[in-house]
Amino acid sequence: MAQTIRNKVFNALEISYSKRKGLSFAVNITLSILIFFNSIAIILSTVPTFSASYHHLFVEFELLSVSIFTVEYLLRIWSYVENRQHSHPIKGRLSYFFSFWGLVDLLAIAPFYFTMFTADFGFIRILRLLRILRLFRMSRYFHAFRVINNVLRSKREELILSFSFIFFLMIISSSLMYFIEHESQPKVFTSIPAALWWGVNTMTTVGYGDIYPVTKLGKVLGAFIAIAGISLFAMPAGILASGFSEHIKGSKNKDGKIKCPYCESEYYISESRKH
Amino acid sequence: MAQTIRNKVFNALEISYSKRKGLSFAVNITLSILIFFNSIAIILSTVPTFSASYHHLFVEFELLSVSIFTVEYLLRIWSYVENRQHSHPIKGRLSYFFSFWGLVDLLAIAPFYFTMFTADFGFIRILRLLRILRLFRMSRYFHAFRVINNVLRSKREELILSFSFIFFLMIISSSLMYFIEHESQPKVFTSIPAALWWGVNTMTTVGYGDIYPVTKLGKVLGAFIAIAGISLFAMPAGILASGFSEHIKGSKNKDGKIKCPYCESEYYISESRKH
Amino acid sequence: MAQTIRNKVFNALEISYSKRKGLSFAVNITLSILIFFNSIAIILSTVPTFSASYHHLFVEFELLSVSIFTVEYLLRIWSYVENRQHSHPIKGRLSYFFSFWGLVDLLAIAPFYFTMFTADFGFIRILRLLRILRLFRMSRYFHAFRVINNVLRSKREELILSFSFIFFLMIISSSLMYFIEHESQPKVFTSIPAALWWGVNTMTTVGYGDIYPVTKLGKVLGAFIAIAGISLFAMPAGILASGFSEHIKGSKNKDGKIKCPYCESEYYISESRKH
Amino acid sequence: MAQTIRNKVFNALEISYSKRKGLSFAVNITLSILIFFNSIAIILSTVPTFSASYHHLFVEFELLSVSIFTVEYLLRIWSYVENRQHSHPIKGRLSYFFSFWGLVDLLAIAPFYFTMFTADFGFIRILRLLRILRLFRMSRYFHAFRVINNVLRSKREELILSFSFIFFLMIISSSLMYFIEHESQPKVFTSIPAALWWGVNTMTTVGYGDIYPVTKLGKVLGAFIAIAGISLFAMPAGILASGFSEHIKGSKNKDGKIKCPYCESEYYISESRKH
Repeated sequence: MAQTIRNKVFNALEISYSKRKGLSFAVNITLSILIFFNSIAIILSTVPTFSASYHHLFVEFELLSVSIFTVEYLLRIWSYVENRQHSHPIKGRLSYFFSFWGLVDLLAIAPFYFTMFTADFGFIRILRLLRILRLFRMSRYFHAFRVINNVLRSKREELILSFSFIFFLMIISSSLMYFIEHESQPKVFTSIPAALWWGVNTMTTVGYGDIYPVTKLGKVLGAFIAIAGISLFAMPAGILASGFSEHIKGSKNKDGKIKCPYCESEYYISESRKH
Repeated sequence: MAQTIRNKVFNALEISYSKRKGLSFAVNITLSILIFFNSIAIILSTVPTFSASYHHLFVEFELLSVSIFTVEYLLRIWSYVENRQHSHPIKGRLSYFFSFWGLVDLLAIAPFYFTMFTADFGFIRILRLLRILRLFRMSRYFHAFRVINNVLRSKREELILSFSFIFFLMIISSSLMYFIEHESQPKVFTSIPAALWWGVNTMTTVGYGDIYPVTKLGKVLGAFIAIAGISLFAMPAGILASGFSEHIKGSKNKDGKIKCPYCESEYYISESRKH
Repeated sequence: MAQTIRNKVFNALEISYSKRKGLSFAVNITLSILIFFNSIAIILSTVPTFSASYHHLFVEFELLSVSIFTVEYLLRIWSYVENRQHSHPIKGRLSYFFSFWGLVDLLAIAPFYFTMFTADFGFIRILRLLRILRLFRMSRYFHAFRVINNVLRSKREELILSFSFIFFLMIISSSLMYFIEHESQPKVFTSIPAALWWGVNTMTTVGYGDIYPVTKLGKVLGAFIAIAGISLFAMPAGILASGFSEHIKGSKNKDGKIKCPYCESEYYISESRKH
Repeated sequence: MAQTIRNKVFNALEISYSKRKGLSFAVNITLSILIFFNSIAIILSTVPTFSASYHHLFVEFELLSVSIFTVEYLLRIWSYVENRQHSHPIKGRLSYFFSFWGLVDLLAIAPFYFTMFTADFGFIRILRLLRILRLFRMSRYFHAFRVINNVLRSKREELILSFSFIFFLMIISSSLMYFIEHESQPKVFTSIPAALWWGVNTMTTVGYGDIYPVTKLGKVLGAFIAIAGISLFAMPAGILASGFSEHIKGSKNKDGKIKCPYCESEYYISESRKH
């Protein structure tokens, strides 16, 4: 009997992909909205004027959120054994406890309880940082993240290749720039790691303007690095764009029909394979 | 009899796509040119030297423009019932009045009449802002906007996907940066919304230089965000570029002939579908 | 007899695409190299230390260059009537005189003669600017320029479309930014044209840091414009990239064989058209 | 007998692509890791706090690294004659000595021995710069570099074309900007080479903010250059991205099977050629 309720709780908390309506969908949407407003609250609570005016509201919303998240966390722990692969009452629950999302769920509520028993405000400041992790929980409900994940996996090889090359060139050029500029600007190009900050800013073309070469040789090298950087950084960008585009095209044609993006003609995979 | 004139007025004001010449084309081109010079006038009137030297010219051109736009607006209201779907004398005209372009047309002329009856100059300043909306009217005559609109619609799914991911990463990284940099630069990284300004500037690689990390940890995070940003922002960019390219290719082959952009071979859709 | 020499001179000055060796090739390469070193000389002559140390060398090289370019110009005028379409002794020569490259050739040597008869040094400064046009002459010998020209022509429609949209959005956003920021920064956002400088810097993501919003509303608008800009500017970029890529592919397969860039399979156009 | 050992040493030092396991793989991985940590050591040794705290550690690691690299270098010289094309005892070894990697290997260890016999610290500073070349050695073990190399070679024509155009436009625009801005900012736009630094910073959209136009004409030109730059720089970027993508696709289908990236249908090259 209790198992039936537990099973219902488990199914309600899990994300069901098949049906868009029902209890599971309602529960997950409600939790998503709560997490969304929680994120907004964390962001707004750092604005001094808001924080002062609506102090009570923030505290109460915090209390409400943590209560709901705590109940949700306990229900998850309790119902997790409904998962066939983790049916053992202790082992199964521990496997949730130490899973990635289990830890995120815990870290999203733990800081609140910690700050209740301690008066060390510096410690609280660090723990409040963990509350941002609640934002990550939203990703569980986002379709986009699964897509990004698939694209990153399918283009893994190309991305590692291009980033390793960018990384290598960045180290070489930043080291050279350090040796060139260190004498002229000892307080700006203090070390190679400091020069790496220049390297990233230049190759990504951010260019804040806090660090840049002033010597002639440094400017010549800097010009080449900027030109190389813009070309090289376009590689992972182009790879991601094409992977993204391929994914969308692939997922639209799951009925066996294939539509050439250029010819606009549709045909079946099986047929074309015989062909 | 009046209905015939009204019909002619309606057709003259409407954009006819079929024929390039005729009254409708002449009227719409004239209005486009007037709107174009109006836009130029609004822009130049903000330049102090121009504004002082040609004050009378600006006032007179304003008077002329508003007169023409008012006549056009009244004619549109009067003739709108020629539209078969909106033939009711009151309902039809109200449906124009509250349509998007009806409101834009009204807002383009309303500020002028408002400023005639009020001496509150602060109020005028805000209303003059609405005059910029006249520029939007130009879009009615721009082919480009229909194309952009089509591309945005066909690639909606991919764009929402990529922007939601960018948005999410921006919030996470800006929040982290706030917690890292707040202590070192309390007057720069005042709150998470302020850190979001940094996030946008870094991920879009604008990098004005008004806000950037100074701590070591902040620089390390900033470097990763800049690298991630340049890769992620290329996704919607690449999606738009491909959508744009596909649209042009598609619209060029409306005669049933299809030309593969790579093979350069032409064939008919019907044939290839049988195939 | 004179006509034979004139014909030889004409052919020597013209760029012959068919044969890589011969008099025409030698003459044009020599002139290209001279123009190249002239360009270097113009660039270096603006560096004070170089200019002072090698003043005589610069003057002598200038004298030599202008002499050769003058002789070349006169020979071009004299021999231009060998061109069948411009065989009339006066009309033909005038048609060269007023052609684009004829005027560039003239403007490349005219400033030198002007500065000989005038002592107005401010006037010289402006005329020396024209010497840079000599650099443009190099383009006559560059294959790249024909390619760029072809790509720009084949993608004209798409490029105009995307740039007109960018241009429109830039005006709208800069106007809005002017009204938002003018009160807070009256000396920075002085007028809409000044705000357009911000618009260009933001949408191209250059971000020098000389002009940026400081108000909250301005920062929100600025963030959206930066995000829109990076997406929109990628459109002409992507269009150019694809046009460029298509051109190279097309020019490689002039023997009738077509190679699909993806399938890597070669076939003939005629065959595939029957297909 | 000695030859057998020499052969074994030669094979151990060479990178064998066929088998992933064995002595050669172990030796090369060990050397790669040593070079990696050497690079880290060079980078960290420039940080004053690290350098002071762990001075002894850096010196000892330097001693160990140089010892191993010296032994490796001598073994390479000794065993290089096992290479069939360079079997001559003196000529073969000299051909390694003067090969690119031979010189890199030498320059990676030479500075250490030079600094032992000289007290000229300024000289040491310059020689230490050569130690960064050790980083380049890592590339010997990186698959990415071969890929990049292949892509650069296959897209050579397009890349030269686009970069020559960018280079040309950069010179023209920077020269114009010098003549426009020199009078207003004589200390910033000192010469055309200085203006080229502006040109690179603008066209790559880095925009540090150390040099930018202030005159109206300069800003108008600067705006056009920024817009042109962002479009033009996307060309080599797009070319590299497509070349990269084509390479990966090509290398995945070496078994004769071809998979269309859009149709997802597989077929054989030979078949499709008959077709």
